[in-house]
Amino acid sequence: MPTAPHFSLKLRLYRGADIALGPGKIELLNALQETGSISSAARSLNMSYRRAWDLIDTMNQCFKSPLVNTVTGGKGGGGARLTDLGQQVLNQYQSMERSAIQSIEADMKNLTSLLRKL
Amino acid sequence: MPTAPHFSLKLRLYRGADIALGPGKIELLNALQETGSISSAARSLNMSYRRAWDLIDTMNQCFKSPLVNTVTGGKGGGGARLTDLGQQVLNQYQSMERSAIQSIEADMKNLTSLLRKL
Repeated sequence: MPTAPHFSLKLRLYRGADIALGPGKIELLNALQETGSISSAARSLNMSYRRAWDLIDTMNQCFKSPLVNTVTGGKGGGGARLTDLGQQVLNQYQSMERSAIQSIEADMKNLTSLLRKL
Repeated sequence: MPTAPHFSLKLRLYRGADIALGPGKIELLNALQETGSISSAARSLNMSYRRAWDLIDTMNQCFKSPLVNTVTGGKGGGGARLTDLGQQVLNQYQSMERSAIQSIEADMKNLTSLLRKL
């Protein structure tokens, strides 16, 4: 638990009742890109394989084409690779996050300065 | 539940383990400003009086001076008025939200266009 005052900004993209993208799914895309494996990515995020699989499935269903190509089972417990669309979506979400934070950086400092000292 | 694809952006300001400001507290500040009463504000947000009171208390504790002046009990079940600081913080948070959304509007449209049609 970080104790210094800080802001969080959370972006979510909804398609009907589904969250097509959000902080958790973006973390998972990042981990899949780093590890190339569903089970390793899930482990690194302290998430069950089943949960990672469900998040990938939701993303893949929400977009016009899959964000992640998966090979279930086999040695290593399921490979996963971001598709071109997956890479594009990940980059764009992260760039949006940076832009949004940048646009309010001065205000964040100002609001934070109004807090009582810890 | 809205069915059209849409984005949500949530800003939260943390002070230690406390959320000093977030979407729920901002909604409450807005409702207090409109109604001038804790019980009416709570009712309009479908929230218990106790919950509204706790949120106000957390905000008031987190900032250098209170955001809301309250008069508990009495006729009408507790009056509440935003202080100058409360008004300032509310305005600034809402302006941050607008700036952040504006800075990513084009990207939001683009990402939304990549979703499968409902």
